[in-house]
Amino acid sequence: MSVVTLEKCRENIRKQLDNVVDFWLKYSLDRVHGYCLYTGICLYCYIVQILVMSSFAFYFRGFFTCIGKDGKIYDELKYVWLQGRQVWMYCRLYRTMDRFHKPEILEAATVGGAFLRKFARVSSSSGQWKCAFCLTRDGKALKVQRTIFSECFYIMAMDELSRLTGDKDMQLEAEQMMEQLIYWVQVDPSGLGRPQLPGEVPINSLSVPMMLMCLVQQLTEGRGQEVAQKYKELGNWCVEQILQHIQRAGTAILENVSVDGSELPGCQGRLQNPGHALEAGWFLMLYGAQSGDKEIHRTAIRNFVELPYQYGWDKEHGGLFYFLDVDGHCPTQLEWSMKLWWPHCEALIAFLMAYSHTRKPELLEIFSEVYQYTFSHFPDAENGEWFGYLTQEGKVALDFKGGPFKGFFHVPRCLYMCERILDDLLENKD
Amino acid sequence: MSVVTLEKCRENIRKQLDNVVDFWLKYSLDRVHGYCLYTGICLYCYIVQILVMSSFAFYFRGFFTCIGKDGKIYDELKYVWLQGRQVWMYCRLYRTMDRFHKPEILEAATVGGAFLRKFARVSSSSGQWKCAFCLTRDGKALKVQRTIFSECFYIMAMDELSRLTGDKDMQLEAEQMMEQLIYWVQVDPSGLGRPQLPGEVPINSLSVPMMLMCLVQQLTEGRGQEVAQKYKELGNWCVEQILQHIQRAGTAILENVSVDGSELPGCQGRLQNPGHALEAGWFLMLYGAQSGDKEIHRTAIRNFVELPYQYGWDKEHGGLFYFLDVDGHCPTQLEWSMKLWWPHCEALIAFLMAYSHTRKPELLEIFSEVYQYTFSHFPDAENGEWFGYLTQEGKVALDFKGGPFKGFFHVPRCLYMCERILDDLLENKD
Repeated sequence: MSVVTLEKCRENIRKQLDNVVDFWLKYSLDRVHGYCLYTGICLYCYIVQILVMSSFAFYFRGFFTCIGKDGKIYDELKYVWLQGRQVWMYCRLYRTMDRFHKPEILEAATVGGAFLRKFARVSSSSGQWKCAFCLTRDGKALKVQRTIFSECFYIMAMDELSRLTGDKDMQLEAEQMMEQLIYWVQVDPSGLGRPQLPGEVPINSLSVPMMLMCLVQQLTEGRGQEVAQKYKELGNWCVEQILQHIQRAGTAILENVSVDGSELPGCQGRLQNPGHALEAGWFLMLYGAQSGDKEIHRTAIRNFVELPYQYGWDKEHGGLFYFLDVDGHCPTQLEWSMKLWWPHCEALIAFLMAYSHTRKPELLEIFSEVYQYTFSHFPDAENGEWFGYLTQEGKVALDFKGGPFKGFFHVPRCLYMCERILDDLLENKD
Repeated sequence: MSVVTLEKCRENIRKQLDNVVDFWLKYSLDRVHGYCLYTGICLYCYIVQILVMSSFAFYFRGFFTCIGKDGKIYDELKYVWLQGRQVWMYCRLYRTMDRFHKPEILEAATVGGAFLRKFARVSSSSGQWKCAFCLTRDGKALKVQRTIFSECFYIMAMDELSRLTGDKDMQLEAEQMMEQLIYWVQVDPSGLGRPQLPGEVPINSLSVPMMLMCLVQQLTEGRGQEVAQKYKELGNWCVEQILQHIQRAGTAILENVSVDGSELPGCQGRLQNPGHALEAGWFLMLYGAQSGDKEIHRTAIRNFVELPYQYGWDKEHGGLFYFLDVDGHCPTQLEWSMKLWWPHCEALIAFLMAYSHTRKPELLEIFSEVYQYTFSHFPDAENGEWFGYLTQEGKVALDFKGGPFKGFFHVPRCLYMCERILDDLLENKD
C-alpha cells in the first residue's frame, strides 16, 4: 500500500465512520413520545415530566439495538452489553474527535448512561450487584447471564462517561463494580449464580483476562500514578493469563485452557476463535507499547496477530472463520464457518496497529487483504451501516444491522481506531 | 408414488435403519477396558469387578455421542438428552422389531440405562431431582440446564426400559419424575433454578406441551385403564396448550405464545420452527386417532403438517428452514437458514402418517418431495449414518455424525416409524 492508497483508505474509513454514527443516531435512540429533551416539541412529555418529576430516563429510554437492514426496529428489547458499549463509544467519539464533539452525541451518551445506571443493575441473591443481560423497553430485567460481561460493559460505559461529565461518583461506581468483578474472577465466582458441579474444572477462557485487561486500560488511561498503581498487579495477571493461551509450542492460540495453563481435553480444549485472539493481540500490543515491554510486544504481534490470521483466514473464500478446531475436527458450533463482522474489525485494528508500531510491509499487506475483504463484503451501500453475518462463501446470511450481539461498537471502534492510526501514520510518512 | 415406489422406499428405509443401528453399536458404546460383559474377553475387568464389586457401570459407561464422520470419538462428554434417547430407541427396536431382538441391542439398552440411572440425576438446592445436561465420561455432572428436557428423556428411557425388563421400580421412577415435571410446568418452576425477573412474562413454548404429550403417550401406551386415566387430564391440557400456537386466523404456527394463547411481542413472539410444528403434528395426529377425535386429527394435518411445510419449505433450494420470522424479518438465530436433519425426519413421519390415515394423494406427493431431498442430502454413502447440518444451499456444513444435540434418535426413530407405516400401507394396498 502506497501513501496515496493509505490516504484513500483513511478517506473511506472516515466516511464509513460518519455513516455509521449517523445511522445509529437516527434509528437507535428510543425517544418515547417523540423527541423532547431540548427541543420541547413534545408538550405531553414536558407536562408529564413536571408532574411526576421523573428523571431523563422517563422520556429517553436508552437504545434500541434490534435494527433491521433499513433502520426499522424489529424488537424493542434492550441488550445491556450493547447499551454499555454504545454509551462508551459515544463518549469516546465526543471526547477525542473534534467532528463528533456535538450536542447530539453528548446527549446520546449521557441519557443512554442514565438509563443504564438506572436499570441495568439487579441485586443478586448473594447481595452482590449483577447487571442484567437483557431489559424490556422500559428497563425491567428480563434475563441475567451467569458471566461477567454485562458488568464489563457497564464499567466501560461508567468510566468513560465520568471522563466526559467529570462525575467522581460515576468513576467510583465503575471502580466498585470492578472490585466485585475481580472478586468473582480471582476469589469466588459463586456470586455469578452458577452452581458448582462435580464434573466441572475451573478454566481460563481467553475472553475473561482479555476483557479485564481492556478494563484496566480503560480505568487507568490518563488517571495518574495512583490509579495506575492500583491496577498494575491486575494488569500483569491479565497478561500472564492471556499468554497461557499460547499452546502447542507457540503454533496455536487456544480459546480455553486450564488454570495452570495446560491444554484441556475435548472440543472445549481444541477450540480456536481467531477474532478473539486478534482482539487480545491489539490489547496486548498496547500494553507492551505502554509498559515498554518489547518481548510482550513481539509476542503480541507474532502469536496473537500473525498466527490467528494464518490459521483463521479462509484460503478458499477469504475472510476469517468464526470458530476452528486446532486438530481439524469440525467445531460443534453451527456457525463455525460463517464470516462475522467483528473478527474482521479486530483484524483491521490489529494489523494496522502492528504495522504502525513496526513498519513491516508484510503486516500492511495483510491489513490490505483484510481491508479489501471487509469493505467489499460488510458495508451496505444501499441503507448504510454494515451487515454482520455472512455465509462461508461471503453471502449475507442475516441482514439486520443491529441484533442481540451486534450494536454500535465493533464497527465504529474499528473505524475510529484505524482513522487515528492512519492519522499518525500519514503525519509521520517517512 | 406407486406401490412399486413405496416398496422401494421401504427397502431403502430398512437398509438405512440397519446401517444406522450398526453405526451406533459399533462406535458409540463406551467400553472401558474393552468389551467384557458377556464375552469375558477382558480378564482384567472381570478380576477388577470381583475385587471391587462394582456395578455394570464400571466397565460400560453409557454412550459416546460426539462421533466424527468416520466414527471417531472427538469428545468424550456424555450428553444426557442423547443418553436417554439412545436407551429409549434401543428398547423400542428390541421390543417391537423382530430383526433387532438381539442380545447386543438388549445389552446396549440395559447397560446404557444403568449408566443413566446411576449418574444423570443430581439433587438440586430445593431438594428436587434435576437431571444433568452433560456428564464427564465417568458420569460426573458438568452442566445442568434450567429447563425440563433432560428429565423428559430420562423418563422416556426409564419407562421404555421398564417395559423390556419388567422392572416395576423403574416404571415407578419414571412416573415420579413425571410428577415433578408436571409440578414444574403447571405449579412452580422455581425448582428449575431460574430466578424470577421483573421483566419476564410466563410463556407457552411449543416444545413444552409437545414433550409432555409425547411422555403421556409413552407412559400410557398399553398400560391399561388406570394409567390412562391418571394422565388423561394432562393429555387434554397438552392438546389445549399446543392448539394455542395456531395464530393469525390459522395461517401460522408460532413457537412461543403467552399463557393465555395470545401473540407475544418481538422476535420471540414471531418465531417459527417448522420442524417443531411438524413433530407436534404427528404427536397430535396420534392423539386424534387414539382418542377418536376427528376434529383434532384434521387440525393436526391441516395446521401442524401441511401449513409448516407451506411456510417452512425453501422454494429456491429445497429443504426445511430451521427458523423463520412470521413477518419476514430476519431471525436472530445465526443458523436460521440451515437445513437440519431432524426437521426432515419429523416431516417424513408426519406426511407418511397423514397419508396413511387419509390416503390423500397430495400428502404422499409432499412426502415424496421431502423423501427425495432428505435421502439425496443427508445420508453419508461413504461412512454410513447421516450428516446433520447443511447450508441453505444443501452443502454439508458440519460433518460429524453425533454431537451435543445429534445422537441415536431422530434418524432411527424416523426410519423405524416410516418402516412400520409402510408395512401397514403395503399390507393393505387397496
